[in-house]
Amino acid sequence: MSANSPTPSVRPGARRGLIRPLVQDLHGYVPGEQPKIKGLIKLNTNENPYPPSPKVLAAVKAATDGRLRLYPNPTALALREKLAARHDCAPENILVGNGSDELLALATRAFAEPAAPKAGPERATTPAARRAQSAATIQFFMPGYSLYPVLAAIHGSRTNVVALAPDFGLPPLAVLRKSRAWDFDAGLSFLTTPNAPSGRGYPTAELDALCAAHRGVLVLDEAYVDFARENALALALKYPHVLVARTFSKAYSLCFQRVGYFVGHPELLGALDKIRDSYNVNGLGQVAALATLDELPYYRANFAKIIATRERLSAALTKLGFTVRPSQTNFILARPPAFPAAEWLARLRARKILVRWFANSPVSDSLRITIGTDAEADALLRAVRAELRAPRD
Amino acid sequence: MSANSPTPSVRPGARRGLIRPLVQDLHGYVPGEQPKIKGLIKLNTNENPYPPSPKVLAAVKAATDGRLRLYPNPTALALREKLAARHDCAPENILVGNGSDELLALATRAFAEPAAPKAGPERATTPAARRAQSAATIQFFMPGYSLYPVLAAIHGSRTNVVALAPDFGLPPLAVLRKSRAWDFDAGLSFLTTPNAPSGRGYPTAELDALCAAHRGVLVLDEAYVDFARENALALALKYPHVLVARTFSKAYSLCFQRVGYFVGHPELLGALDKIRDSYNVNGLGQVAALATLDELPYYRANFAKIIATRERLSAALTKLGFTVRPSQTNFILARPPAFPAAEWLARLRARKILVRWFANSPVSDSLRITIGTDAEADALLRAVRAELRAPRD
Repeated sequence: MSANSPTPSVRPGARRGLIRPLVQDLHGYVPGEQPKIKGLIKLNTNENPYPPSPKVLAAVKAATDGRLRLYPNPTALALREKLAARHDCAPENILVGNGSDELLALATRAFAEPAAPKAGPERATTPAARRAQSAATIQFFMPGYSLYPVLAAIHGSRTNVVALAPDFGLPPLAVLRKSRAWDFDAGLSFLTTPNAPSGRGYPTAELDALCAAHRGVLVLDEAYVDFARENALALALKYPHVLVARTFSKAYSLCFQRVGYFVGHPELLGALDKIRDSYNVNGLGQVAALATLDELPYYRANFAKIIATRERLSAALTKLGFTVRPSQTNFILARPPAFPAAEWLARLRARKILVRWFANSPVSDSLRITIGTDAEADALLRAVRAELRAPRD
Repeated sequence: MSANSPTPSVRPGARRGLIRPLVQDLHGYVPGEQPKIKGLIKLNTNENPYPPSPKVLAAVKAATDGRLRLYPNPTALALREKLAARHDCAPENILVGNGSDELLALATRAFAEPAAPKAGPERATTPAARRAQSAATIQFFMPGYSLYPVLAAIHGSRTNVVALAPDFGLPPLAVLRKSRAWDFDAGLSFLTTPNAPSGRGYPTAELDALCAAHRGVLVLDEAYVDFARENALALALKYPHVLVARTFSKAYSLCFQRVGYFVGHPELLGALDKIRDSYNVNGLGQVAALATLDELPYYRANFAKIIATRERLSAALTKLGFTVRPSQTNFILARPPAFPAAEWLARLRARKILVRWFANSPVSDSLRITIGTDAEADALLRAVRAELRAPRD
């Protein structure tokens, strides 16, 4: 706070003079809890229940030596080369981030203008005003990854939030065009595919049609795609305005080490490259991700196990009165019977089972439940039956 | 690029329609080279020549297990508690980043306004215009860490660059006041202390006087302070507008793992906390930093070795005709004899010794040489003597 001109504030101690008003007014993103409770069954942040491959752990240990004193490769070159070989593209089509969250944040700063402090009317009337409004728009379907509106607020862009259909399907292109709800020129648009928190997957053909019609930068956020029937990676190589986001966190059991990547056109990636931190991806994370790509059969076996558990748990919860959405991810969205979702959250927590509930969201009537091991699914079912006073099997 | 309105561009292929003009026009930061040349002596990026403590390596290996599937602690709480105990403050006075580079970038986004696209005249005339100009100003002394102007450009803030004295000393406060060169209300100011690339250290009393007079947010960037006679950490706890940046990279041999931190007032740190990525610090980096804090005597012994090598190398280069600045860091700035600095860079590189040269900078007549081991210093001296055709010892 300026010593010469103390700024009065409604919040005691708020230093409006030192912190940007935009930041002062922000509410930060609230990640899922990471509590340290002994014996807790953690089904709240979509982590993989299976550890990394033993060969990945061995590779990380083998690299834990004097090299830790050196900076990591600033462009994650070896990892980009290996990813390029996997995805049949060039290393220039890959950008690696400190988790895909970093890349989503970088995209807001590279592709969307921060809105002017006093934003214009919602519906701009002149072509120039419409262009300026689109350039300052970050757009996404809701429900979707709850980080997007937080990133837009941090960057100071306006948001255009478009509702998914009640079954979490994408509104048809004709509807998006006719309703003018979707801005095909928005500076940056995000699409979670498969969708979170519903688990719904989208056919690549449907995504292709949207990409073909869209003109601004469109990020297809495929954080959960390894558990889905289709993926849209080819669209990032087909369209110069489309990026696909992937992560090693969930499917590849590497949340701890923060490695995600974008696939897309070198010009878009070049813009992000200019504004990222020089050494944004830690060295042991690069080592772990490289070793992971040599062990894909191990991980594919885990995907199959998780999908089998998902289908079994979905069927069992449905029998117990839950409305469970079909899922192509490693979680399910389930509307519970008997008590409100918030109460289920508390009841399950008291039984040391942590699931996720999104207050003030279109899915606040439901719980998002990460798919763990079969034993964890059984523990959850036992807890649910106990709460429902249902007879045990 | 919009399919409907292709934007003509001076650069072939530049997609002005997709990438923000601000980003399109940026030149990214150029980090020191990280080449993979066998037998190369790498004295260009100020890495520590000594590996982490064996106990730190053991701690990282021991943590390389199934936990890699889980998200790391999102607030690096255990590390903040241990750092707080070390620095005699509260965990709320500490914020951990993905290297201190991430924290410097976050500071630009929290404390400086991006300038309006058409910035006003350099010298604003009304009080309101002056306040707006200060709020959009990122300020630093030059020479200093070459990342600052890059971060300002990325954020779109104007810069106020203030020259250090010819001996790299801080201009006296009276001069800063009288010349109006320094903006005491700038949104964000950076001060590299000890200075890079000169190596000059500043007395804490001198920094205290500047902090007391300054009103905007001031970051004292202490990346190299473990090699100096004094540190200014107490100022971050004394003044609510002052932050001190520290890193585990250089002194603590952990460049690979990306861990830095800010010390300061909880309100400033709270603003940064709201805009950072939720899981910005990787898990094994947190483990390594925690273990490092149990091994401080090992690192202090390394600091003493590096300082001894620094003094010996400085004296030897001086004898050979170099003008070597006194250094309180793990590098020296040396103006070479006989050939221009750029030529020395190339000649030493041909002998597999890599040092740093900053083109287009106030120190382009000099080389910045990282202090390595005694053997590396001897190899450098041999190479220099060979180039000078000086008689061998």
